[in-house]
Amino acid sequence: MNQATLFQTGDIAAMDQRYRAKFINSLSGFKSVNLVGTANEAGQTNLSIVSSVIHIGTNPPLMGFIMRPITVTRDTYNNILATEYYTFNHITEAILKPGHQTSARYPAEESEFDATGLTPFYSEGFPAPYVAESPVRMGLAFREKIDIQLNGTIMMIGEIMEVWAPEEAIAADGYLAIDQAGSLTCSGLDAYHRTEIIARLSYAKAGQEVREM
Amino acid sequence: MNQATLFQTGDIAAMDQRYRAKFINSLSGFKSVNLVGTANEAGQTNLSIVSSVIHIGTNPPLMGFIMRPITVTRDTYNNILATEYYTFNHITEAILKPGHQTSARYPAEESEFDATGLTPFYSEGFPAPYVAESPVRMGLAFREKIDIQLNGTIMMIGEIMEVWAPEEAIAADGYLAIDQAGSLTCSGLDAYHRTEIIARLSYAKAGQEVREM
Repeated sequence: MNQATLFQTGDIAAMDQRYRAKFINSLSGFKSVNLVGTANEAGQTNLSIVSSVIHIGTNPPLMGFIMRPITVTRDTYNNILATEYYTFNHITEAILKPGHQTSARYPAEESEFDATGLTPFYSEGFPAPYVAESPVRMGLAFREKIDIQLNGTIMMIGEIMEVWAPEEAIAADGYLAIDQAGSLTCSGLDAYHRTEIIARLSYAKAGQEVREM
Repeated sequence: MNQATLFQTGDIAAMDQRYRAKFINSLSGFKSVNLVGTANEAGQTNLSIVSSVIHIGTNPPLMGFIMRPITVTRDTYNNILATEYYTFNHITEAILKPGHQTSARYPAEESEFDATGLTPFYSEGFPAPYVAESPVRMGLAFREKIDIQLNGTIMMIGEIMEVWAPEEAIAADGYLAIDQAGSLTCSGLDAYHRTEIIARLSYAKAGQEVREM
């Protein structure tokens, strides 16, 4: 067994609030890093970084992400409900600092695109702004809002309407090598990491050894 | 702008089913990799790999994960509902192949611990089995099941009751360096990656440059 220390409910409750937030946020494991692009009905753009995007289903292609309780104005949330469209844009090392900077609190009339220097890009017929510098981008149509009663957080689920991806990173079987595309991962509240592939492993069957593909 | 190809709704719908599954599963970004440890009421253990664990909240400390529709018997799901306790265990390179192998379909009477050679470990007073070889482990109490109407998937939410973590990987501010602990990340349906830290970035404020910490 590894050397590990046990933290029980009382230990966690006794932690300083900020310390606990950093500790607990580290525990789920590595996370996706996406910029959510939206616009309000007047066309004013907004961009915010999220680390909670997850795959919900393939057919239809659905993705979810978690929003914190709406105790302050949240432009992303309001824009999605008002316009029903939004984008996810992977973050690379080249846009890491401006991407992280979108988590700052800007006045509603200032776009995070302008504030950070990231470039809005519009796909024909799709109303929400993409991040031009991002190599993997999805345009989504809002489908369902789930209120999580336990703590007031909200899961927003959307259907993928279009995908922008570098064709040379797509393997013959459909796998998109997001590491080759330059996508990053994050951990905790503020740590960013590049990745290195170990292996793709074969579909597991009982009584049969897993192979590297 | 990066070289990227546009895939529209029709292109995605026209993809072969397996190709589409691999493609769509790659899009959310990097994911956490955890083994879910459970036992049924008779004490028979079960272990299954999941890549959908996400942080839901800090106080109380809540985590969620997504289960596919219950169209076949799912021991993990049944065990969580029956006993209300389960564990999450990070996967490292040393246990990658046995970890992946837990996704094979074993008969109900065969434990994935036995089938893969991973070692069950019990914490005093906590009923669900941990994976002894895992450096970062959480024991959870089941709190809420959310049925996602759009496609029949289910989000299971639990509260962290205890954490096992290597103390030397915990920074002074509470951040747990899961890369130092050896935790992996995954992408798509079958690709596993190690990580390398780029930076921790300072809390973003409007009009102030983000710094590396």
